[in-house]
Amino acid sequence: MNRTELIAEIRRKKSFLCVGLDPDMNKIPACLQQEEDVIFAFNKAIIDATLDYAVAYKPNLAFYEAYGLKGMMSLKKTIDYLRRFNVFTIADAKRGDIGNTSLKYAQAYLDPAGDFNFNAITVAPYMGEDSVKPFLQVPDKFVVLLALTSNPGARDFQNLEITGGAEGTSLEKHLYEQVLRTSTTWGDADNMMYVVGATRAEFLSDVRRIVPNHFLLVPGVGAQGGSLEEVCRYGLTDDIGLLINASRSILYAGKDTDFAEAARAEAARMQQQMQAYVR
Amino acid sequence: MNRTELIAEIRRKKSFLCVGLDPDMNKIPACLQQEEDVIFAFNKAIIDATLDYAVAYKPNLAFYEAYGLKGMMSLKKTIDYLRRFNVFTIADAKRGDIGNTSLKYAQAYLDPAGDFNFNAITVAPYMGEDSVKPFLQVPDKFVVLLALTSNPGARDFQNLEITGGAEGTSLEKHLYEQVLRTSTTWGDADNMMYVVGATRAEFLSDVRRIVPNHFLLVPGVGAQGGSLEEVCRYGLTDDIGLLINASRSILYAGKDTDFAEAARAEAARMQQQMQAYVR
Repeated sequence: MNRTELIAEIRRKKSFLCVGLDPDMNKIPACLQQEEDVIFAFNKAIIDATLDYAVAYKPNLAFYEAYGLKGMMSLKKTIDYLRRFNVFTIADAKRGDIGNTSLKYAQAYLDPAGDFNFNAITVAPYMGEDSVKPFLQVPDKFVVLLALTSNPGARDFQNLEITGGAEGTSLEKHLYEQVLRTSTTWGDADNMMYVVGATRAEFLSDVRRIVPNHFLLVPGVGAQGGSLEEVCRYGLTDDIGLLINASRSILYAGKDTDFAEAARAEAARMQQQMQAYVR
Repeated sequence: MNRTELIAEIRRKKSFLCVGLDPDMNKIPACLQQEEDVIFAFNKAIIDATLDYAVAYKPNLAFYEAYGLKGMMSLKKTIDYLRRFNVFTIADAKRGDIGNTSLKYAQAYLDPAGDFNFNAITVAPYMGEDSVKPFLQVPDKFVVLLALTSNPGARDFQNLEITGGAEGTSLEKHLYEQVLRTSTTWGDADNMMYVVGATRAEFLSDVRRIVPNHFLLVPGVGAQGGSLEEVCRYGLTDDIGLLINASRSILYAGKDTDFAEAARAEAARMQQQMQAYVR
């Protein structure tokens, strides 16, 4: 799914909702705990329940790797199932390594011939250009680069003020802005997106000054307290340009046999808020 | 294996060599390509050949994830095999996510009850404190935090000069130094190490000013051109305090049936250079 197709799907569903598939065995309802593959059974039920209201799905790989080889099997079944539908799939992996190693990660999660054929992967920027570019070499796929995250620790480094770099070029004020600025030379809006947390919506206007057209993947609306209205005020573009991620607020909306119904209701509620912004 | 045990093993073997287990199907000798599990067969031969000269082994997870579920099976067999010996094991994963998600990664790679029970994991610092601390909660395990990496892209952000932070506390000059400074409050030399590339040995004296006692995991000696002598001049401590990683220069020292012998010879060559520094 490329950018044009994603935008078309957003307009068709009047939704820019991304469902974070972060299955936690301790939170999956008891009624599923006897399934042979509990995680996949849960994911499948969540996908079926939310498909009318969501355009993207984002499994966070930690929740699969935590269960070892069995968890990775569940991830494979999940991505295979997602690929039956016209949805945008994001491997929330936050990878990044030296060039030849990042190429291996690209092969792992973006390569159509591999076990996990996602549309996009989240990447951490700390190691710079050669750690990100190998992902951009896979045709028709996206890097979603961490810029400003929604967690408390984001303040430790992302918000540091910077004054000088190795090359003496003009600089942005904060590290996360410099990450945006520098990375715009590595790819474009057709193969890059950025993670920008909703818990700091006021920063979105600074983000839009640097990347006016890129899609932003926005966590933190819902469980972490961010506001959809604020995010849209500062982040919306003519092409929408936003994917709002919700994980726990949808996955665990219900606690028992009603979990899928409750997830559907919560996804519908978010879609209804979003439709006013989809023109 | 804790810090004291690691130091004892370094003194016994007169070596602080870490072998990077980065198996690349395109480079593994033809004589192994008929094995049922090519990657594990290669790793096992390399481990057997280098065990006299190495104190640590570091599989980079990208090289396993690239081969999907099959690759993860090879990783499991590799860590299970490594745990038969008294060696320090590092999951080179460069993970890091919001707190509850990092906890899942810790569960995946450090938990003694999990499939992959490593002594240590490499972590990327961009998301700050709550992305790193969950790893430090696993008893007797280590975080190896990225500080200054050996790749060209390290210059993009790690060497940026900084002037101000959210809390107005005193700051180091460069981002990588600030990562070192800030993270010293999260753990100590008994549960943290740092990645500092050998290709920039002159920076090691700045690193040692901030973290005088922590172990440094140093890539870049060998294939990437760093000098062991330079690294020791600036980085060595009374407890040695260094793990020098070599991957390609050992793994692919030979190209055919002599590959294990050639790997052993290269590991022995490095150990012989190292023994002068082990007091």
